Amino acid sequence: MGRMTALETLETPALILDRARLVANCERMRAHLAPFGVPLRPHVKTAKSSEVARLMHGGGTGPVTVSTLKEAEFFLAQGFDDLLYAVGLAPNKFARVAALARAGARLQVIVDSAAMAWAFREFCGSQGLRVPVLIEIDSDDHRAGIRPDSAELLRTAAALDGLLGGVLTHAGNSYGSTSVDHLRRWARIERQGVTAAAECLRSAGHEVPVVSLGSTPTALFAQSFEGVSEVRAGVYVFFDLVMAGLGVCALGELALSVLASVIGHQAHKGWLVIDAGWMALSRDRGTQIQRVDQGYGLVCDARGEPLGDLIVVDANQEHGIVASRSGERLDVRRYPVGSLLRVLPNHACATAAQHAAYHVVGAGGEIEARWERLHGW
Amino acid sequence: MGRMTALETLETPALILDRARLVANCERMRAHLAPFGVPLRPHVKTAKSSEVARLMHGGGTGPVTVSTLKEAEFFLAQGFDDLLYAVGLAPNKFARVAALARAGARLQVIVDSAAMAWAFREFCGSQGLRVPVLIEIDSDDHRAGIRPDSAELLRTAAALDGLLGGVLTHAGNSYGSTSVDHLRRWARIERQGVTAAAECLRSAGHEVPVVSLGSTPTALFAQSFEGVSEVRAGVYVFFDLVMAGLGVCALGELALSVLASVIGHQAHKGWLVIDAGWMALSRDRGTQIQRVDQGYGLVCDARGEPLGDLIVVDANQEHGIVASRSGERLDVRRYPVGSLLRVLPNHACATAAQHAAYHVVGAGGEIEARWERLHGW
Repeated sequence: MGRMTALETLETPALILDRARLVANCERMRAHLAPFGVPLRPHVKTAKSSEVARLMHGGGTGPVTVSTLKEAEFFLAQGFDDLLYAVGLAPNKFARVAALARAGARLQVIVDSAAMAWAFREFCGSQGLRVPVLIEIDSDDHRAGIRPDSAELLRTAAALDGLLGGVLTHAGNSYGSTSVDHLRRWARIERQGVTAAAECLRSAGHEVPVVSLGSTPTALFAQSFEGVSEVRAGVYVFFDLVMAGLGVCALGELALSVLASVIGHQAHKGWLVIDAGWMALSRDRGTQIQRVDQGYGLVCDARGEPLGDLIVVDANQEHGIVASRSGERLDVRRYPVGSLLRVLPNHACATAAQHAAYHVVGAGGEIEARWERLHGW
Repeated sequence: MGRMTALETLETPALILDRARLVANCERMRAHLAPFGVPLRPHVKTAKSSEVARLMHGGGTGPVTVSTLKEAEFFLAQGFDDLLYAVGLAPNKFARVAALARAGARLQVIVDSAAMAWAFREFCGSQGLRVPVLIEIDSDDHRAGIRPDSAELLRTAAALDGLLGGVLTHAGNSYGSTSVDHLRRWARIERQGVTAAAECLRSAGHEVPVVSLGSTPTALFAQSFEGVSEVRAGVYVFFDLVMAGLGVCALGELALSVLASVIGHQAHKGWLVIDAGWMALSRDRGTQIQRVDQGYGLVCDARGEPLGDLIVVDANQEHGIVASRSGERLDVRRYPVGSLLRVLPNHACATAAQHAAYHVVGAGGEIEARWERLHGW
């Protein structure tokens, strides 16, 4: 475990990672997927940490999904050579993709247009490279991708020619679910969309080895993975208030929080001022559209236990305002200046991105490790 | 100027800084304040760059305001030794403050309670240090600070004893202004609050050398600085859509933008998908409460000229959705995949914070320099 130090020795704000919850979250996903026999390709964009990615694979390396080529380079150097870059390519990234392939990465990339497919195939031809390309499928009318029934699908496959590696989708609309039934329905829609696209391509004579789908909500609530070759999910590793609001996890599963100090009071308003503002918490307001709006985060004591309905109601760059969600005036004398609090984030990906490292906390509440995380592109 | 490269050689997303606009913005603030003879202590939390801080002082070093002790350390190392840390202290930062003072920083800190004043004075006594402390004044009922007419003001001054350096305020409510009259009124309120506090302390026998106020809107619209010893402001260096929405600047003064590539189309919706999501733009939605909601940013061509009412209507981690603000369906064929766009940010502080460096663009639209910026605490 190394040298252990108390939480109270940290300077605030600081990003805290609860190791026991992290390990349990990793295990929950693996246990859910095991009966289906479908492989997991975790998305490492949430944690951007090799220690966390290894836990996602139960201790070793394995296939991962990345959101930037910098992640791909970092994880390759850490022994993760099976990499899927799951954001549509742009021509100014072709050279970096080629360098990754030459450095030994088994890298796959994605496109959702015949035009980009053609441009990348031309590039690979000129470089004497073969980098498999997945076609992104729009299964839920959410964001990017080609509709499975669109003529563009076959045009894109034709443009890729020998580079076609398969199909991929992400049902981002699952984040708007309001019940378990909704979650299951999005999981079904996601699977139906991507498998329909695979069948369409196969009917046209293409090989489609990869059929990739996933998001944390659909991965955890899917009742079938028939026709699916791999599942992607990322935020489950930490969970967050948005996931709790969807019913995907309990508050007690949230592994990430921001440690903050009370730096002032506005007693007449029932406000605590803390030294975690949007720089430490992010500007993400993902629970704003949910039944319970958690402001910029749910406030806990230094051990991580929620303090009733205290939330961060407003945030400036380095200041957060803590008050009761109900509007009841908090007796600020309960939290003298200098008190430590922890804030559970709306969106783990966004909050973690504001920090350079995780302070990993063990069962005894002491800091066991500092894990660096990646930043930038 | 060094070696110049074309914008088209950058990988996207990338943070672009227009040097001519930056220089003009720095000059505008200095020209506005010059007739009043009041010194400027620019806030470097927006840019977190020594190159930018020097331009804020017309080329050299000078007094600066910082939002973190890491900024204080960085700027001290860059020759800026007159530093004001303008976020309320917490005890876990006392040791780092002491180290800065011992390293030669002329550092001032702030508190807004007798309790924290007492704790810091005890600490300084035990260390044999004298670090001047400003009392933060709540001039506009916005966030932190002691009301100028509060008994806590005199208690805090008494607790500081020989450490009292003066008073400081920030009228953050000026960001909610809807007219030039409002801006002038907040500037008046800010000045009246902080000078009233100074007078109250002087009447009680205290020396109050520092009377510090400011924000970009109040600094630029104030009609008097009587009784004020220094002005603080930060975001004016870049300006942003929030400032433009307030009428504090014109769109043509925005110095910062994010370069992005079109990576896909959803033609039936009139959407462009770009590779700048909230990781590159930030989650800041500061214009949401203004007359014109700019989404996650106003979209421009690669030269920085706005493209009608195209905005980033939604953002995921590495994806942005570009569409018309009016809802009119964009003909996406005008922007083929691979096209470069630039996005003007809602909030320059938040967007810049997502990036490790500025790509500085000269009058010819070519990259002249790369300026690193600070990250973290």
